[in-house]
Amino acid sequence: MRTTPDNAVHPHPADPAPYIAEHSAAFLAELKDWLRIPSVSANPDNAPDVRRSAEWLAAALTATGFPVAEVWETEGGGPAVFAEWPSGEADAPTVLVYGHHDVQPAAREDGWSTDPFEPVEEDGRLRARGAADDKGQVFLHTLGLRAHLAATGRTAPAVNVKLLVEGEEESGSPHFGPLIRKHAERLRCDTVIVSDTGMWAEDTPTVCTGMRGLVDGQIDLRGPDQDIHSGSFGGAVPNPATEAARLVAALHDEDRRVAIPGFYDGVVELTDRERALLAELPFDEAAWLRTARSHAALGERGHTTLERIWARPTAEVNGIHAGYGGPGGKTVVPSGAEIKFSFRLVAGQDTARVRQLFTDWVAARLPDGVRHEIRFWGEGTRPCLTPLDHPALRSLVRAMSRAFGQEIRYTREGGSGPAADLQDVLGVPVLFLGISVPSDGWHSVDEKVDLDLLFKGVETAAHLWTELAADWADAPWPSSR
Amino acid sequence: MRTTPDNAVHPHPADPAPYIAEHSAAFLAELKDWLRIPSVSANPDNAPDVRRSAEWLAAALTATGFPVAEVWETEGGGPAVFAEWPSGEADAPTVLVYGHHDVQPAAREDGWSTDPFEPVEEDGRLRARGAADDKGQVFLHTLGLRAHLAATGRTAPAVNVKLLVEGEEESGSPHFGPLIRKHAERLRCDTVIVSDTGMWAEDTPTVCTGMRGLVDGQIDLRGPDQDIHSGSFGGAVPNPATEAARLVAALHDEDRRVAIPGFYDGVVELTDRERALLAELPFDEAAWLRTARSHAALGERGHTTLERIWARPTAEVNGIHAGYGGPGGKTVVPSGAEIKFSFRLVAGQDTARVRQLFTDWVAARLPDGVRHEIRFWGEGTRPCLTPLDHPALRSLVRAMSRAFGQEIRYTREGGSGPAADLQDVLGVPVLFLGISVPSDGWHSVDEKVDLDLLFKGVETAAHLWTELAADWADAPWPSSR
Repeated sequence: MRTTPDNAVHPHPADPAPYIAEHSAAFLAELKDWLRIPSVSANPDNAPDVRRSAEWLAAALTATGFPVAEVWETEGGGPAVFAEWPSGEADAPTVLVYGHHDVQPAAREDGWSTDPFEPVEEDGRLRARGAADDKGQVFLHTLGLRAHLAATGRTAPAVNVKLLVEGEEESGSPHFGPLIRKHAERLRCDTVIVSDTGMWAEDTPTVCTGMRGLVDGQIDLRGPDQDIHSGSFGGAVPNPATEAARLVAALHDEDRRVAIPGFYDGVVELTDRERALLAELPFDEAAWLRTARSHAALGERGHTTLERIWARPTAEVNGIHAGYGGPGGKTVVPSGAEIKFSFRLVAGQDTARVRQLFTDWVAARLPDGVRHEIRFWGEGTRPCLTPLDHPALRSLVRAMSRAFGQEIRYTREGGSGPAADLQDVLGVPVLFLGISVPSDGWHSVDEKVDLDLLFKGVETAAHLWTELAADWADAPWPSSR
Repeated sequence: MRTTPDNAVHPHPADPAPYIAEHSAAFLAELKDWLRIPSVSANPDNAPDVRRSAEWLAAALTATGFPVAEVWETEGGGPAVFAEWPSGEADAPTVLVYGHHDVQPAAREDGWSTDPFEPVEEDGRLRARGAADDKGQVFLHTLGLRAHLAATGRTAPAVNVKLLVEGEEESGSPHFGPLIRKHAERLRCDTVIVSDTGMWAEDTPTVCTGMRGLVDGQIDLRGPDQDIHSGSFGGAVPNPATEAARLVAALHDEDRRVAIPGFYDGVVELTDRERALLAELPFDEAAWLRTARSHAALGERGHTTLERIWARPTAEVNGIHAGYGGPGGKTVVPSGAEIKFSFRLVAGQDTARVRQLFTDWVAARLPDGVRHEIRFWGEGTRPCLTPLDHPALRSLVRAMSRAFGQEIRYTREGGSGPAADLQDVLGVPVLFLGISVPSDGWHSVDEKVDLDLLFKGVETAAHLWTELAADWADAPWPSSR
């Protein structure tokens, strides 16, 4: 199999920019209509809005030209939208774009400058709940695809384009796995483009090459059958709060490495090139700490902050609760304790193995008289990582660099998402096309999208299908299975 | 100074038992009247009842014959009752009886068999809130004193008797220290008899020789300014929940000894005789664990369970709260954490020194980026311990053994109480006369007092003044100052 060098030159289509400029006002007007629908998946009262949002998108995709645009029901969650536009070429690859049309809750009272569901254009930005996460980043594909057709003179895209836009990502995608397994045949593709991430900064366009996996759950400890008097019994019976603390404290060694034996087995270490690429990013730790609302960096010894959040596995306690929590004191030995934990995993780690290692480790550490139960929130999310030399990744980077007129750098994403489900169920590599920046205020007040970046995203999408088709013609991509 | 040997024979007064038997019905009727007053100090709605209870008691003490019986106001808490009955003898010692007239909350809905404030006599027991803790044990002194007079033919007690019965013990005695400092001159005495503790068991009468001290408070930790995303930031900034757990875990070493340097300095170790006396008690660990509602014993290595709860200092976490505690998971790094802690102290430990040691220890263990604040709930309660050979203790033991017709064994109390304030402010030894047993249900449902034990307590009180006066005549007691 030949591989295409980074500097491969494919025939350039005409510039899509004029078409995009000509249709930008209509595009924005349509996007604003969609943003006005409060498709908050977390709030059952908004269930009709989530459905309306799905129907609105399906209609918009039909209007864009997709021959197939359907609303897919889930088993109890908000509906997803599926659309498909075959290229008509015999040997074109199939690319599935993933995004979501539900949004985080938002209310003017939270501190928004204006109604979160009444979009406002101001200073080159579009402010509304969902502007960046994720309606803007989904919708850029509509104008992107039209511009692709206009620039290439085609009547159908250069690749087979499929879209899957789910309606419960902000609620943890509880029905997403079953949905894609049910429809695996119709979702079959050669790569997935996730449009639900971000870039490093306005002046530093980047492509994300991986997300961490996640295993999370809860440990319940039970000691005495009820809270007991610490004077009468304390110091002579096990205290579940103390035992919970001893468990949590033992999770890390003095180097802040996870101390569960076997936890790091199989971890794909960063290559020298990857470490060098990360180190090239213009990282300002003081500024990053402000974003993190934190007052010091602390983590696994021997790694930088970016390596720690993107490329290293972690163990975190998300909550710990035991005993008295009211005002003043109450001298009890608590009857129980509860620990909420989460592990972030990186390539090479297996969710089932981490669950088992942790389960065994916990059981071995508790004294007699303290019973425990571990529950995991599902099977966990696997990590995903696109090799830097994957041909489809290089196509994406070329499309971005044409749109942005700049070198594209590499990031990863510390969080975890349904991308891994797509990778696993469909058995294909997952790429990330995101144009949002950290200041966009995801899940926060005054969420916005930068219009300049949004239209660069549109232009990237317009180039992308051409690049991918040409690259595939050189040599089909390896499957990730 | 001569000391009186344990087997000293003082002239025996006539037996007080016939007088007690004759007046027992009237005594119980009166006690029931008092128990009907719901003097719950924790509930502001019951403030008038607490006052009514104080006034009722002052009137009852006047009726008993006390020439002085007053209601003493506190600075914002429930009123106390003070009474005084001078002996008339020139060189009689002065003895102050301490108890409380407020009670724990109680409601039929909590699971009581009958109305907690409508006393019920049944199977030789009197069931009501306060029957044992502490109205029954305070009120036994009224009939005890009358029986003392009847048996000795005196018109005033053989010692100067003072009573101080506070009204907010069940709320932590917040104004007790100021109250006794204010009235220190009128409370002046040679020993204090605390009637607010218990005995080992119905068939094993015991005298308590000490209580542990207490230092308690709260540590607040602050990390990020708000909860932050564990995927975006976790593993690269300090997590206050983890730091709280590391603090709590570090409180004990692998031998479950408190690991704060200097904590054990000055601790008065048990003598061989004390260890032997404790080991003589008919201790059934399985039964004790049932009382503790616990499923295993665990504590400082090298000590028995009774030593751990009575004679060894401890560190306990009474509560720990950080981060998410709702259903399911939430992948955050919590912004803060809160630890409720308490130390039980034994003789030889100083509350101020323990506060300082802990404060320094905490400050030295937290990483950059985690701020903390320690608050203590007041200055702490000092431990108190009566030497086994204190003459007044031997008088009390003789009085009990006459009433019970049995050998009296020795216990201590693992909890902490205002006894230490009396010891410190008045500079005298504190003795404990309690006839309650562990099954009496203090602070729980169906609180009761065993009537046979209650009347043995009355009889003990009748003997006590004679014994103390005779002993004092042999040699005045050393002050504890």
